[in-house]
Amino acid sequence: MTTNATGGTADRAGHADQDELITVPDGLRGVAVADTTIGDVQGKRGFYHYRQYSATDLAASRTLEDVWRLLFDGALPADAEERAVFEAEVRARRSLPEVLQPLLAGVAATSGATLGGLRSAVSLLAGADGMQPLWDLDEAARRADLLRLAAATPALVATLWRRSQGLEPVAPDPDLAHAANYLWMLHGERPTAEQARALEQYLILTVDHGWNASTFTARVIASTGADAGAAVTGAIGALSGPLHGGAPSRALDTLDAIGDPGRARAWVTAALDRHERIMGFGHAVYRTDDPRSVMLRSVAKRLGGELADLAVAVEGIVTEELARRHPDHPLYANVEYYAGVVMDACGLDRALFTPTFAVSRVIGWCANIAEQLTSRRIIRPAGRYVGPPAPAPVPSLA
Amino acid sequence: MTTNATGGTADRAGHADQDELITVPDGLRGVAVADTTIGDVQGKRGFYHYRQYSATDLAASRTLEDVWRLLFDGALPADAEERAVFEAEVRARRSLPEVLQPLLAGVAATSGATLGGLRSAVSLLAGADGMQPLWDLDEAARRADLLRLAAATPALVATLWRRSQGLEPVAPDPDLAHAANYLWMLHGERPTAEQARALEQYLILTVDHGWNASTFTARVIASTGADAGAAVTGAIGALSGPLHGGAPSRALDTLDAIGDPGRARAWVTAALDRHERIMGFGHAVYRTDDPRSVMLRSVAKRLGGELADLAVAVEGIVTEELARRHPDHPLYANVEYYAGVVMDACGLDRALFTPTFAVSRVIGWCANIAEQLTSRRIIRPAGRYVGPPAPAPVPSLA
Repeated sequence: MTTNATGGTADRAGHADQDELITVPDGLRGVAVADTTIGDVQGKRGFYHYRQYSATDLAASRTLEDVWRLLFDGALPADAEERAVFEAEVRARRSLPEVLQPLLAGVAATSGATLGGLRSAVSLLAGADGMQPLWDLDEAARRADLLRLAAATPALVATLWRRSQGLEPVAPDPDLAHAANYLWMLHGERPTAEQARALEQYLILTVDHGWNASTFTARVIASTGADAGAAVTGAIGALSGPLHGGAPSRALDTLDAIGDPGRARAWVTAALDRHERIMGFGHAVYRTDDPRSVMLRSVAKRLGGELADLAVAVEGIVTEELARRHPDHPLYANVEYYAGVVMDACGLDRALFTPTFAVSRVIGWCANIAEQLTSRRIIRPAGRYVGPPAPAPVPSLA
Repeated sequence: MTTNATGGTADRAGHADQDELITVPDGLRGVAVADTTIGDVQGKRGFYHYRQYSATDLAASRTLEDVWRLLFDGALPADAEERAVFEAEVRARRSLPEVLQPLLAGVAATSGATLGGLRSAVSLLAGADGMQPLWDLDEAARRADLLRLAAATPALVATLWRRSQGLEPVAPDPDLAHAANYLWMLHGERPTAEQARALEQYLILTVDHGWNASTFTARVIASTGADAGAAVTGAIGALSGPLHGGAPSRALDTLDAIGDPGRARAWVTAALDRHERIMGFGHAVYRTDDPRSVMLRSVAKRLGGELADLAVAVEGIVTEELARRHPDHPLYANVEYYAGVVMDACGLDRALFTPTFAVSRVIGWCANIAEQLTSRRIIRPAGRYVGPPAPAPVPSLA
């Protein structure tokens, strides 16, 4: 029996009846559902980490595949050989089965390269691959399925994208690293080294970020022992929700509307006077600079270009104006703000910004799914019934 | 600020940092995530209800469409006209778009009429219907999408089933009620009135049952404001997990193995002596008779047949033997046990038992999704980081 916040008790072995339910904050805010060693977000400090390493330090000095291995297997590759072994595992799992091609063409025709299209595509891939319930698999087989989904997601996005543009898919290039290969499959041409590294750094920075709704969805589904495709499909669904956040194209729309640094102050002041929200600022967790935004700003500056210059100028003005108006509740640029600038500089169409977020986050989801399966406990909460008392007599039809 | 069970505090406005996390039982057992007026399960009493009515009373005297309206709109139809209006709404939303047919044939070829196949099918339907984020829709448009998914699920299952059997799909019959039409679309022949009513009662009894993992998944995804297809797709994924329960075919496999009432005692005793679990007995919530099982037993008896006789005989022996061996922890037949007997008597192939469970539960999921959207609060809990302290310096590759 566990004593709860409101003085009741809960029978841990099963469902607690109504008077024994545990009361927690709305939306499970601040409720620790389980232990994790994957990482953490320290919102007040403006810091987040994967395992024991700062995520931004990893993005500065490591490859995406290194970070992927860290999340999946618990450790960075120690040497070039360990790195090559993991890279080979990923590259072997990128290609899509032929049977999927006509289905993906159909998905592209109805949904395009949206998160809704990707949701269908991942579900279909899991079916075509014959993925079995994770609960029925040993650890190696579980890891293989989770690696597969994360490795193949770029090919799914790229295929949906090219089909929706009336283009044939481009096969993965085994000579390219994950980020570069994604750009290759999208555009059918080799990205520059600068673009590939910039996109890779974006992907590293967004692989994982606490138990947001999509990661939590993946874990709830995984807790039932369902197949890896079920868990990732559900997570994509959650990610597609407008309240989940993560629509970097909106911040770019704002920059478009401003157009020129010289017009920024007037535009921002007018928008704030109208009490409009400026997209790309503020975050549910960070109470100071979003460390992802800080690093992506430096990536954007490195890539250069007019858009980056405009973004930096506008950020300065927006944060200044917001701080002046709301000194007790300052807002900072969030991950969306510079993500769009970086992805644009890498040649990505705005429609691809959110699916590209899924390309990175699927790695974190899959690490969370694997960790969730180390518990035998299904995630099954309760609702508190507040309707009229039951049973009332069922009336007859008049 | 909210005081929690372990004496810390949580900032309700955002993420609580590590030392402020709220500790709750594993798997959120007994944790009330939110208020609900949809229904409740009283495990100790062996009672469950939809709104203010006993679910078994509803199954005894009302149609599935009446119960559906109760869950969706909050009230049973008061008269024949209100009933007819709701029935017409459902019937108008049963047919699948032509564009979906080749895709469903592809899904059937790789996944058959499994829950994995249904997961893809629902996702594809939502895409083909162009479903938009629920957050961006008004209440009437939300209700239309949710009604659509619940109304069309039988056609999706039936199409996948018939394609996997090498048969052409059968179009819905607007003259038939939901349960009868499902049997029609599966088999291409009119069910008897007895079969249609028995299946309808099974569907009514399994429409909703607290915040199990699939219902909770639907609510988490809905809390992000995603489209209805995203939420239902995720719920199907959770339902497909072996730990979710609900595999009525397993109980039938046991009855097959026993074969004859005269062999039941010896078979059961031997299985229990080997410490084997007997499928179809015991439940996470009920500590007494499962009210669904009690009612399905009477439905099975009404339908008659050798299998029903065998099931009743075996149930008696199993509960007796279990009570003798574990007097402090008696187990009772659960919903799975007689569900399989009833579905078998309705002519359903065993492969269809679990998808048929989804045909009913999708109604409950959709009611829960609609209710979840009355809150603006995304469901976003936390994990408690228990790994090595961060940040550690990122090592260089050797």
